[in-house]
Amino acid sequence: MVKSMWKQKQIILPNYPRGFHLITDLIENEMLEINDISAGLLHIFIKHTSASLTINEDADPTVRMDFESHFNQMAPENAPYYKHTFEGSDDMPAHLKSSILGSSVSIPITDGKLNLGTWQGIYLCEHRNHGGQRKLLVTIQGE
Amino acid sequence: MVKSMWKQKQIILPNYPRGFHLITDLIENEMLEINDISAGLLHIFIKHTSASLTINEDADPTVRMDFESHFNQMAPENAPYYKHTFEGSDDMPAHLKSSILGSSVSIPITDGKLNLGTWQGIYLCEHRNHGGQRKLLVTIQGE
Amino acid sequence: MVKSMWKQKQIILPNYPRGFHLITDLIENEMLEINDISAGLLHIFIKHTSASLTINEDADPTVRMDFESHFNQMAPENAPYYKHTFEGSDDMPAHLKSSILGSSVSIPITDGKLNLGTWQGIYLCEHRNHGGQRKLLVTIQGE
Repeated sequence: MVKSMWKQKQIILPNYPRGFHLITDLIENEMLEINDISAGLLHIFIKHTSASLTINEDADPTVRMDFESHFNQMAPENAPYYKHTFEGSDDMPAHLKSSILGSSVSIPITDGKLNLGTWQGIYLCEHRNHGGQRKLLVTIQGE
Repeated sequence: MVKSMWKQKQIILPNYPRGFHLITDLIENEMLEINDISAGLLHIFIKHTSASLTINEDADPTVRMDFESHFNQMAPENAPYYKHTFEGSDDMPAHLKSSILGSSVSIPITDGKLNLGTWQGIYLCEHRNHGGQRKLLVTIQGE
Repeated sequence: MVKSMWKQKQIILPNYPRGFHLITDLIENEMLEINDISAGLLHIFIKHTSASLTINEDADPTVRMDFESHFNQMAPENAPYYKHTFEGSDDMPAHLKSSILGSSVSIPITDGKLNLGTWQGIYLCEHRNHGGQRKLLVTIQGE
């Protein structure tokens, strides 16, 4: 029989401007319990519908700039068919981007560390012009 | 040592028309075991390749209408390069939308409740014109 | 009290050409521990930022061809706003596709088997022209 461990914590992020931002270090510093797990999973959930989470290249900042440019093409402001417009032109695109990218990421924990690939980092994707402080709910489980 | 709990259940949804539909209440009513968990995760998996699940804004129905409009632009019917056309013009776009949005969502459970943000709800995304009754496989785990 | 089981394994895939490829059988053959679980989850994580994982139709190979065609439209090469271009024209689209589709899938295990729908299979999505051997980190948990 295996000893299972659960740990949950809400993290309130600092304000980030619209765009894609690396939060790997922030998560690791807030969740020191990762060190206690030999095999498990880290689940990060964002409690918002106009910001999202993804995993991508963490070395070259121009990748994150290109993400902002490209998602602005994929989910443009002021599309003629939008009905949900009363919260500003950045709002409906933010909802769409949020679902395209997703509201959670799940990452293996192995031998006390996040088992990310060499170039992988965790992105906070802020889709609003003034999104404010975003709340994450982080769940760690493992043995 | 922590007491871990697992619960799995298949849910057969009623027929939904093509579009985006809130199923948060339905899930909560079917999965009363959520109440027994102090820290855990709810995993919902859709056993189909032409419907999907996502989490987004649950207050204004026009958001869900705009999702339908926008995903019809992102994955249009009758694209000239489609080869998989024999199941109808709504079929290949349904497969694409299904993978863009994803076949599962995973939501934290805290103190006996889904730990969703204020405006977050669970969407069933029905991408076919006549999708029929969709099957979900819900897994709850926690302590 | 329930007996929880965790199992993690790294799998190095063979070389796949650019495109979408079924890996369901490969995963099942590598993870025989699935048979020992009555209720649980399989989590597959790809340790790269230019390849991804998704679940979709596993019967007709033209679906996977249409995925390649369509994602090449959604995240085109040589978009005029790309700044991250020094790794080749297939690189920035690969990063975008990777985040649109996602770096992990999570599938229920029921009675010793993956609880996939009739037509569902696991896709490896290779977005680079010469991606090489990709590493997966597979985590099984359950009771």
